[in-house]
Amino acid sequence: MPEQRRSEALLTDLYQLTMLDAYRRAGMAAPAVFELFTRRLPPGRNFLLAAGLEQALSFLENLHFTADDVDWLAATGRFATDFTDSLASFRFTGDVWALPEGTPFFADEPVLRVEAPLPEAQLVESRLINIVHFQTLIASKAARCVLAAGGRRLVDFGMRRAHEADAALYAARAAWVAGFDGTATVLAGRHFDIPLYGTMAHSFVQAYDSEARAFEAFAAARPQGLVLLIDTYDVRRAIARVIALQAKLDPLGQKVSAVRLDSGDLGAGAKLIRRLLDAAGLQHVEVFLSGNLDEHAIATLCAAGVPAMGFGVGTSLDTSADAPSIDFAYKLQCYDGRPRRKRSVGKATWPGAKQVYRRYSGAVMAGDQIVEHGEAGEGEPLLVKVMENGARTAAPEPLAVIRERARAALASLPVPLRRLETGAPYAVVVSDRLRALAREADAATAR
Amino acid sequence: MPEQRRSEALLTDLYQLTMLDAYRRAGMAAPAVFELFTRRLPPGRNFLLAAGLEQALSFLENLHFTADDVDWLAATGRFATDFTDSLASFRFTGDVWALPEGTPFFADEPVLRVEAPLPEAQLVESRLINIVHFQTLIASKAARCVLAAGGRRLVDFGMRRAHEADAALYAARAAWVAGFDGTATVLAGRHFDIPLYGTMAHSFVQAYDSEARAFEAFAAARPQGLVLLIDTYDVRRAIARVIALQAKLDPLGQKVSAVRLDSGDLGAGAKLIRRLLDAAGLQHVEVFLSGNLDEHAIATLCAAGVPAMGFGVGTSLDTSADAPSIDFAYKLQCYDGRPRRKRSVGKATWPGAKQVYRRYSGAVMAGDQIVEHGEAGEGEPLLVKVMENGARTAAPEPLAVIRERARAALASLPVPLRRLETGAPYAVVVSDRLRALAREADAATAR
Repeated sequence: MPEQRRSEALLTDLYQLTMLDAYRRAGMAAPAVFELFTRRLPPGRNFLLAAGLEQALSFLENLHFTADDVDWLAATGRFATDFTDSLASFRFTGDVWALPEGTPFFADEPVLRVEAPLPEAQLVESRLINIVHFQTLIASKAARCVLAAGGRRLVDFGMRRAHEADAALYAARAAWVAGFDGTATVLAGRHFDIPLYGTMAHSFVQAYDSEARAFEAFAAARPQGLVLLIDTYDVRRAIARVIALQAKLDPLGQKVSAVRLDSGDLGAGAKLIRRLLDAAGLQHVEVFLSGNLDEHAIATLCAAGVPAMGFGVGTSLDTSADAPSIDFAYKLQCYDGRPRRKRSVGKATWPGAKQVYRRYSGAVMAGDQIVEHGEAGEGEPLLVKVMENGARTAAPEPLAVIRERARAALASLPVPLRRLETGAPYAVVVSDRLRALAREADAATAR
Repeated sequence: MPEQRRSEALLTDLYQLTMLDAYRRAGMAAPAVFELFTRRLPPGRNFLLAAGLEQALSFLENLHFTADDVDWLAATGRFATDFTDSLASFRFTGDVWALPEGTPFFADEPVLRVEAPLPEAQLVESRLINIVHFQTLIASKAARCVLAAGGRRLVDFGMRRAHEADAALYAARAAWVAGFDGTATVLAGRHFDIPLYGTMAHSFVQAYDSEARAFEAFAAARPQGLVLLIDTYDVRRAIARVIALQAKLDPLGQKVSAVRLDSGDLGAGAKLIRRLLDAAGLQHVEVFLSGNLDEHAIATLCAAGVPAMGFGVGTSLDTSADAPSIDFAYKLQCYDGRPRRKRSVGKATWPGAKQVYRRYSGAVMAGDQIVEHGEAGEGEPLLVKVMENGARTAAPEPLAVIRERARAALASLPVPLRRLETGAPYAVVVSDRLRALAREADAATAR
């Protein structure tokens, strides 16, 4: 399995190594400042929610080329051996500033800043983007589901259609950060201590000659937390079987906890199920919904007062289906103390090391200011030093802390940003000093 | 790092384990047949290209619960220890039939069939879908780029915005299967022996006080395959610098191979660059394009005769941006010799173990027939037995063989299916015997 042989150092774009080779020959190893940010919010997003910093720091801490990596690179014939040999001692020794995970951010605001000798800051580009991009993407999508669900339970059901194994694992983590209640992915439960949820599949019902027998067999195995899937064949008949099963379970003191509906018109289905269960005195049996749900479907169901205690969200969450990428870039903002920026058509950036200040009006976010690092700003500075000389400045944050930060942050969003509709205004201003720095950078590189 | 502790067995949905527990108590371990298929093609796809079978078989071959997995599961308190203890000896002992990688397929056609004792066939569901879904998704997207590019070079540039590490690796593999010429992702080059391509980043140019000095430094490090990025500041000035650099390199016998344009109007830019280079006698310097490319942009550029030798395709490829998932399902089709199917609203399936026959008219695909396994069909049967009693029936296929199969298959697609526009007709018929089997399954489970 390739995973088991994985070297994090070789999980990069070829040009990073080519540039490292060229930097080495030219003696270009002065301090560089790179920042990770997006030039624009993806369609359908009023804000992004930072996530993935923990994995990014872990990557930077552990980054090294194994002897095997070095041998393989040398054997490709692409590089002189003095360069490939030099990689054996490569380590990341720089500083990192970052938005704590669970912080909302906007276009042009750095989510992470790397200050390191140019070759180190350059090499880490591809994997840093890869890590922070994905979890931020999913946390941002999950946050919309959380805002739409109005307190109902949300469970990540997306493993099967996540983009391979890592995506499944880290989508569960990112969704948990954003306020999901749990995941179905066992390994994510194990690694990140996220509550696990699960019911039964249609195949379980199908394997039995009758749905009633399938329900009975499942009840025998699940004395607690018994959830039955009721749409394999016909929902009305299935509910009749749930009612009959509960009658058989009553003498044992066992209860059906919930039923899951996974197809058809979920709103009408939930109402029908609720009515049938209530008529039979099974008010204690809750309704859980799944099947092609996203934040819009959840909002519509909730607005109609759907009698459901929660939702399983799968593909749309784990792939961020409506916006499967963020236009994240990792750009050189300063080299050897001199500001830098590119001016490519449609891709111009603000130079210099930056800080973001956030103002509040009462408990509500009231506007951000992007300033040069060290420049005074109004409100609370958001970027925190998380790594110094290649070492973390603090122990990894517990997920519970991150999750609470995200919860508080979502509560502090201005009302228009909490809506699913996009285009809501949020004031982000760029300081005069940064604008002057841009002119300075342009003048310096115009030659 | 979670990756290093990864257990493939726990990378599953919780309900698989819950169902295994229930199957065990009920003694449900007769042979089951599950099939992996999609009910419909994703929007924007005329066909899908099967990929990921090699990783799926590797997963099945190696599947086991470690002592650590078993201990952890027991410690969750969700299961009785007789069940968790039983997992220590769990192995996949079944048979697998599959479409060879690089085979085009359509809605309702099984891409893979598992025949195994029910608990084994059930447990593997989540990860099998996760593996085959992703590579098939990307190979299908990549095939569209290949059809659009008309023989020009295509390179996977998508690692940074792929959904975490695995997605980057397997996207490179899937794109290579579908006919891409290479990838920028070093680790994919290493694991899968895919040709690596890379140029330079804007940050390289920005790090130097002048673009001319950056180009010279890069040329010094790259005696062969020198590709310069020419849109960091101003394309015209950059081309003038390329021309000046080539004059300096002439006495050394070194040549600039190509320039890369990554922003703005790529078609107009390529023409401008070609004109400037030709006017300076630099006909040998090729133009390579990148920047938000997808199959539609590539087709438009090629239709206009863009003077470019190739394209780097990133985000749109590695996320299959316009259709980031396929509606793959893995469904129980038969249990203990009896046909099964679900009848959920909008999700009804064809029961029974199936085979797909493909007819050709000359060298062109002329229609498929889905039949019951063992039933005679017209043309060539597509599903092949790839695993028997848990062991592969043959050594892993070399990627070159798979790639050649995909190349031939894309050449055999009817012209309407080779177009980017969707909605092209391709005849897939379901046999009368399968239709009768569906009625039989419905009657058997209607009780």
